[in-house]
Amino acid sequence: GPFNAAILIVSTTAARDPSADASATVLREVLMQDGAGRWDVVDERIVSDNVLDIQRSIMPWTDGPDPVHLIVTTGGTGFSVADVTPEAVAPMIHKTAPGLIHAMLSASLAITPFAMMSRPTAGVRNKTVIVTLPGSPKGAKENLQAIIKTLPHACLQAAGSNSRALHAGG
Amino acid sequence: GPFNAAILIVSTTAARDPSADASATVLREVLMQDGAGRWDVVDERIVSDNVLDIQRSIMPWTDGPDPVHLIVTTGGTGFSVADVTPEAVAPMIHKTAPGLIHAMLSASLAITPFAMMSRPTAGVRNKTVIVTLPGSPKGAKENLQAIIKTLPHACLQAAGSNSRALHAGG
Amino acid sequence: GPFNAAILIVSTTAARDPSADASATVLREVLMQDGAGRWDVVDERIVSDNVLDIQRSIMPWTDGPDPVHLIVTTGGTGFSVADVTPEAVAPMIHKTAPGLIHAMLSASLAITPFAMMSRPTAGVRNKTVIVTLPGSPKGAKENLQAIIKTLPHACLQAAGSNSRALHAGG
Ligand code: NA
Repeated sequence: GPFNAAILIVSTTAARDPSADASATVLREVLMQDGAGRWDVVDERIVSDNVLDIQRSIMPWTDGPDPVHLIVTTGGTGFSVADVTPEAVAPMIHKTAPGLIHAMLSASLAITPFAMMSRPTAGVRNKTVIVTLPGSPKGAKENLQAIIKTLPHACLQAAGSNSRALHAGG
Repeated sequence: GPFNAAILIVSTTAARDPSADASATVLREVLMQDGAGRWDVVDERIVSDNVLDIQRSIMPWTDGPDPVHLIVTTGGTGFSVADVTPEAVAPMIHKTAPGLIHAMLSASLAITPFAMMSRPTAGVRNKTVIVTLPGSPKGAKENLQAIIKTLPHACLQAAGSNSRALHAGG
Repeated sequence: GPFNAAILIVSTTAARDPSADASATVLREVLMQDGAGRWDVVDERIVSDNVLDIQRSIMPWTDGPDPVHLIVTTGGTGFSVADVTPEAVAPMIHKTAPGLIHAMLSASLAITPFAMMSRPTAGVRNKTVIVTLPGSPKGAKENLQAIIKTLPHACLQAAGSNSRALHAGG
């Protein structure tokens, strides 16, 4: 597909034992099955629940010569002291996207009241859209499904293209 | 009407050719038709997609001797590099208004998933309520209609009056 | 119950005449009746609409040796110049909780459009969850009811426990 995505798994457990993560597989499936053939997952990293490690993982995808269209993180959005993904990502965001946050929360609150325990952040850094998803496979899936159809338009705008190109079948 | 509104059109295209803007007319119609005779549009400006120009346009309406009750901006709330209205307005806001933002996003997401691509900001500067609306006439209209009935109460509070005056028929 | 809550009434009127406040009683009722026996209100204070007074009232509950699980404030979330509760609380928040804010706004907007005039803040400071509720008894009640069932899980996470303990009947 014409859009490149990177997945960042934020989990101290998975950083020690990659087999402990189940969300990345689910996110790949959503990007493939609900993404209308538009998405290629070009990179995936696992990082522990650490602000600087999270930021250093994101930087090459957003600030390098070949930025990805989309970064989805999974994990670290809860209320515990180890949950620092929003605190790591928010200061990297140039344009905050309350519409994406609203759509994710609204969709997942319609499924479960536990969605109110998520602390999503979303926005644009340089030409890349960044979205922080919950760590549970179920929560990550529901949140990404809520926005996947619209993400190509957001990513095209962020990347500097005209969204008509997409409607024309790009 | 007892309430004064100013409209700021944020669009580099319309700044060169005012006839290119269609949203201001739509916003005037909403203020008139859905505003119960309460709103006078006392000023309107067109400004290009530039943070300082946006801020300089808003300042006389909020920091002068005769502040308006309401400022609505239209345009510059998307994901592209030129879209800087929220980034210009947010640092001017003294009291952020997540309730207005929620109401606008919720109403417009019920109409179209593209609403999640809007990045609205809302709040109070001094005695003036400021709301950033999308640039498309349709999006601007739907968002303003979602809050127009409640804006008089918000504006009265912000201006320092007691909202009972309004209920008494002010 | 296993969870401790503190109530902060923010109202210059009630600070002079405690009998002027009606929200604290309502909040105690919600914590008792909708809280499944889990909540003890261990402290209650009344403070005037003043940023430093609000912050100084919250600090002992969050930064002392025996932090409470939950602080609910009531009042000072409107649009008037005196309404400064969100501005006092937001800079104290270490982890902002948009999911709690969304759930409160969504639930109360379903009841009344005046909910869009509320400006809620929610999040975690140290090990304590803080939520700012409206000053009206009706608004305070509706907002707290929207989240009360999930708050134990949020508070357990914030306090550093595993939420399984709760499910196990803690
Ligand atoms: Na909603």
